[in-house]
Amino acid sequence: MSKTLVFGHKNPDTDTICSALAYANLKNKLGVNAEPARLGEVNKETNYALNYFNVEAPQLIDAVPADVEQVILVDHNEFQQSVSNIKDVRILEVIDHHRVSNFETKEPLYFRAEPVGCTATILYKMYKENDIEVTKEIAGLLLSAIISDSLLLKSPTCTQEDVDAAHELADIAGVELEKYGLDMLQAGADLSDKSAAELISMDAKEFAMGDAKVEIAQVNTVDASKVYELQTELEEVMDKAINEKGLDLFLFVVTDIINNDSEVLARGKGYEKVADAFGVTLDNSHRALLKGVVSRKKQIVTALTDAFTK
Amino acid sequence: MSKTLVFGHKNPDTDTICSALAYANLKNKLGVNAEPARLGEVNKETNYALNYFNVEAPQLIDAVPADVEQVILVDHNEFQQSVSNIKDVRILEVIDHHRVSNFETKEPLYFRAEPVGCTATILYKMYKENDIEVTKEIAGLLLSAIISDSLLLKSPTCTQEDVDAAHELADIAGVELEKYGLDMLQAGADLSDKSAAELISMDAKEFAMGDAKVEIAQVNTVDASKVYELQTELEEVMDKAINEKGLDLFLFVVTDIINNDSEVLARGKGYEKVADAFGVTLDNSHRALLKGVVSRKKQIVTALTDAFTK
Repeated sequence: MSKTLVFGHKNPDTDTICSALAYANLKNKLGVNAEPARLGEVNKETNYALNYFNVEAPQLIDAVPADVEQVILVDHNEFQQSVSNIKDVRILEVIDHHRVSNFETKEPLYFRAEPVGCTATILYKMYKENDIEVTKEIAGLLLSAIISDSLLLKSPTCTQEDVDAAHELADIAGVELEKYGLDMLQAGADLSDKSAAELISMDAKEFAMGDAKVEIAQVNTVDASKVYELQTELEEVMDKAINEKGLDLFLFVVTDIINNDSEVLARGKGYEKVADAFGVTLDNSHRALLKGVVSRKKQIVTALTDAFTK
Repeated sequence: MSKTLVFGHKNPDTDTICSALAYANLKNKLGVNAEPARLGEVNKETNYALNYFNVEAPQLIDAVPADVEQVILVDHNEFQQSVSNIKDVRILEVIDHHRVSNFETKEPLYFRAEPVGCTATILYKMYKENDIEVTKEIAGLLLSAIISDSLLLKSPTCTQEDVDAAHELADIAGVELEKYGLDMLQAGADLSDKSAAELISMDAKEFAMGDAKVEIAQVNTVDASKVYELQTELEEVMDKAINEKGLDLFLFVVTDIINNDSEVLARGKGYEKVADAFGVTLDNSHRALLKGVVSRKKQIVTALTDAFTK
């Protein structure tokens, strides 16, 4: 039986890694020869989850190997976020919770996107629909993905379905949701060994907003002031990226996972749009505290797009 | 509550009309203010089904009216097959069984595509999943859609799910599957009053294949030679469409619903791709018989896309 690879997006986060592992497992149980893969390094948060539940990270790939003819995408659909040779392989399925963009196939496929907070929430439903038992390990992976994408159920992207799934999965995984969640997020929020260049690239995404090109990088922390000890270096690498990529704005978002606020640093000629977008004043060092803002997708991209296009 | 319009593709066929009607009905039962719509005339086959089950055709629209902010697409996703202002409205959901192409949203949505023979087969599952009773009328609509898209369960696009759904729906609708199906198909295959211009537009879809722009029109008949009595007129209107739309290829497909073959007529500078795609020789009048070919989606679009992109 020909092999099917299951993988998520580049710069993998916990949802992408855990969803690839869980969906490959479900496919195996359903008799499909599926293997999980990943397109980049496992971050500290994901690593905490894998260690806790004693699960190995998926194989690392850049491109789909020549002997694999079909793939399943989880947690993404936009081709620029996928493997380099995505246009040369047959996409059998997509399971995702993002907008649909820059995606196409020649043939009909199983494409399932739902507007929930996390891909793992959809996968948990699929285990149920197929009447396949969710083991303790799989429950741990799915739970970790939900905690990560929803910042412990506090992000505005989090739906009731995510909340219900998280509680059920915590029971199966045998962990206390709040405690396990905070421990996992804190493991990911340890930025002590990161350089300024690493901080602005570890979770960075580029967006077109009207005619403007905007890059938004986000890190989670328990102490934003610690991150901003590197402000001079951060400004340097951000200005370099602005010049190299022709960006109108580079926004660096330091999200406090305890207080659920974000302290942002804005560089580039469009920096004043940040003040417009969020009704705040940037201080002399181009920084501002955005109270209650934690979601790039739902709170930052939408407000900035409005500011750039109105 | 703001209104949601539910509609299928331009040049509507029986699946598109019946799926819009059935899904708007399901949404109503679930408390959503949804209304079915259609983007073109109801054909004779669909009309037979609507009359048989005493259901009114949906409202005709060109564009989404200004007071409607959100829409649900059934039986299509490619923007060029949809309303003219599709980019200005919020797409809440897509229920489809085609490839995904030329589709994008700004926000996450519910997107459900499955590789089955008919959108109505997915909708029938959704009635069951939501535990909503399928009335005799709705069963009749869903059944008619399946019969139409699968040429009475004989098309290679037809899956076991479609077959099972058709038998269950025939029971609920209170009809004998074979007899009702053949009567409905024959009602649609009556082309005696159609002009050449009508024949090439009644079920026409446009596709991007690599850099080429390809239009494929299909009609069902019990006597292809009868249709080709209009060959001169057909060539004229096809060439006109090629000039107006800048097409590389216009393929007219006359499908014999009794023998399950198609006799095609190819016009446009890319006409030789048809010979490549199907391993046939076009005769002097640019026609060829494609043995066993009845499915535009599964047999024609895929083979032609390969020929245009290899």
